[in-house]
Amino acid sequence: MDPVPGFRFAATRAGLKDDRLDLGAIVADRPAVAAAVCTQNRLRAPPVDVTEARVRDGRLQAVLVNSGNANAATGEAGRSAAVVTTAALASRLAVPETAIAPVSTGVIGVPLPVDKIVNALDGLVAGLRPDAVEAFAQAILTTDKGPKAARRRVQLPDRSASILVVAKGAGMIHPQMATTLAFVITDVPCDAAFLRVALRSATDLTFNRITVDGDTSTNDCIIALSADAPGRPRFAEGDPSSREFVARLTEALEDVAVMVVADGEGAQHAVRIVVQAAASDAAAQRVASTIATSNLVKTALYGQDPNWGRILAAAGRSGVAFDPARATIHIGDAPVYRRGQPMTAAQEAAAAAVMRRPRYDITVTLGGGDGRGWYWTCDLGHDYVKINADYRT
Amino acid sequence: MDPVPGFRFAATRAGLKDDRLDLGAIVADRPAVAAAVCTQNRLRAPPVDVTEARVRDGRLQAVLVNSGNANAATGEAGRSAAVVTTAALASRLAVPETAIAPVSTGVIGVPLPVDKIVNALDGLVAGLRPDAVEAFAQAILTTDKGPKAARRRVQLPDRSASILVVAKGAGMIHPQMATTLAFVITDVPCDAAFLRVALRSATDLTFNRITVDGDTSTNDCIIALSADAPGRPRFAEGDPSSREFVARLTEALEDVAVMVVADGEGAQHAVRIVVQAAASDAAAQRVASTIATSNLVKTALYGQDPNWGRILAAAGRSGVAFDPARATIHIGDAPVYRRGQPMTAAQEAAAAAVMRRPRYDITVTLGGGDGRGWYWTCDLGHDYVKINADYRT
Repeated sequence: MDPVPGFRFAATRAGLKDDRLDLGAIVADRPAVAAAVCTQNRLRAPPVDVTEARVRDGRLQAVLVNSGNANAATGEAGRSAAVVTTAALASRLAVPETAIAPVSTGVIGVPLPVDKIVNALDGLVAGLRPDAVEAFAQAILTTDKGPKAARRRVQLPDRSASILVVAKGAGMIHPQMATTLAFVITDVPCDAAFLRVALRSATDLTFNRITVDGDTSTNDCIIALSADAPGRPRFAEGDPSSREFVARLTEALEDVAVMVVADGEGAQHAVRIVVQAAASDAAAQRVASTIATSNLVKTALYGQDPNWGRILAAAGRSGVAFDPARATIHIGDAPVYRRGQPMTAAQEAAAAAVMRRPRYDITVTLGGGDGRGWYWTCDLGHDYVKINADYRT
Repeated sequence: MDPVPGFRFAATRAGLKDDRLDLGAIVADRPAVAAAVCTQNRLRAPPVDVTEARVRDGRLQAVLVNSGNANAATGEAGRSAAVVTTAALASRLAVPETAIAPVSTGVIGVPLPVDKIVNALDGLVAGLRPDAVEAFAQAILTTDKGPKAARRRVQLPDRSASILVVAKGAGMIHPQMATTLAFVITDVPCDAAFLRVALRSATDLTFNRITVDGDTSTNDCIIALSADAPGRPRFAEGDPSSREFVARLTEALEDVAVMVVADGEGAQHAVRIVVQAAASDAAAQRVASTIATSNLVKTALYGQDPNWGRILAAAGRSGVAFDPARATIHIGDAPVYRRGQPMTAAQEAAAAAVMRRPRYDITVTLGGGDGRGWYWTCDLGHDYVKINADYRT
């Protein structure tokens, strides 16, 4: 993976996860403009609180990420562990400790092994290199099948710049695991207020529209860092090219968000539930998320069963008013229900063929407006039960 | 099952469900006081609309119930089928057709075989008997393992009276099946307004607090009939003994509601999630329902895994404010998490032993008030996936 000018990456083994890479860092050459979107779960892990406080002034210079331990449900000791480990990195980088965001993912309720992390920091710092992106992407994984990254380019007046997203998340909260993390690294210069709005907007359109099991995690966090330099003009809200930046950022985040859905252990299909012709975008979104989180729909996706009755019944309980007699449902291009009429056997066969694909759309046309929304989901199969029920046995 | 004075029951085979009983009726000797609580799903089946309209005046004399076909997503033809079949029964009973509530359960999206039902009505009417409760209870089943009924007695000034509840529901919306029905039959004389309030209140405390997969059905309906006689004094809101009636009604409904949860195909455990010491009852209820519908919690119940992290994380995303450091979680009597501290191995073993039982409580004490709520749920295991995904294959 290509470097992003102004940033170095590193990864090492701290011994939190057997002999795999489990500690990573991203360090900006100069204090970077920063923004974060963090989980709203009340059982929020202490490092998330520390990160949110430190990013409030729109500045960070580094992130320190460990996998193998979420430092969640660890109370005051957990907070102290986050502060101590970032302070130890800060002294090695000669930056203020408040310029470093601590990020943890892994098992909940186990004290963070501070000594192991601190002992690994010299090696981590020695390994910082512009091109160590892939090793960093490896170090943040827990139950993921592989690293997740996406990149987009943005043409600036004087040069071509990058948006790099590195993420982790196996699409579910694994047994006592805390899940999704994403890091946005860019050499597009951004005003802090703009970066915050752009990240929030892109997150709402991507990571806030994926579900595997409807649960949200204690550690979910997306952190954006934009390389900054004195005197360099920054993108701000309202700049003509700022819309371009938000569009590319959204694309990159969607790429990795769908990778997270597809990587849900046990998942064989990443399915986008698209709802259109609704009274409003919010209504469409509500219908889409209700369908996407229905266990009956998700088991039908697993069974490759074009069961329009479950899709329509889930829409029916979403709380959104619509007339089922005017609604139409397509699976891929195949209609399965059209204004009150069930499908024919031939249509069912066409829909079932679509459902064998690893990725496809289900489109619900409500027929009462121009609101549109969507939600990514995956199938719920035996492996989901196996992984989540049989983990300790 | 003992009769309820003033009512006759019948069941027969109309050919909707192979050779099993699939058509039933309850007929009151005189017009009865009636109330109903019906599904709010937008994809509501036509018979539910007809029933709701007919019960509005607080009067019904009979219900006509078929299993094997939900008459749902059937549009205008479905409405006509409900009207035609009840009209045919009405002429045989010499009562107005608007005094009969049509009720259907079974497959969605298939036209109701009106002729088969009408042809079976003579036999049905001929079989009406006060003691045919069990045959009726059989006739309304779809995927249930067996009939569900409960009874309570209420002492009136002049006699002992009954509340009988007969229900169906296998705890899930089965593949394209529409689910829960309950019939409350009582010879306690009730004012219509009181019966409506009592049924709503008892339903909120029972059937509205059970979940198997978070989906609600197109056909869910609870209908209450109270035997009436001219000049007989009726229970009304505020009567000293009316509270007794509501308490017994709630108990009977809870009995059958828990049978529905326990009968979910694939379910091995009926678990009550109790939340206490919350800021309000509504807050407690919200936390309880979020835990009860969490797939991660439900798979842990299946795995008999005392995974407090999932319970607490689900509580954390419920939207209710609480301090995890003050919260305590018990499984049965075994504490598994106490004010920020995870359990010991011995406590875990005690909790795991409780989780082998077919029925137990999980109690979450939030520690900030005296609000209390609960929700019944069941485990999510391989059989759930098998039944819901592999049905058509």
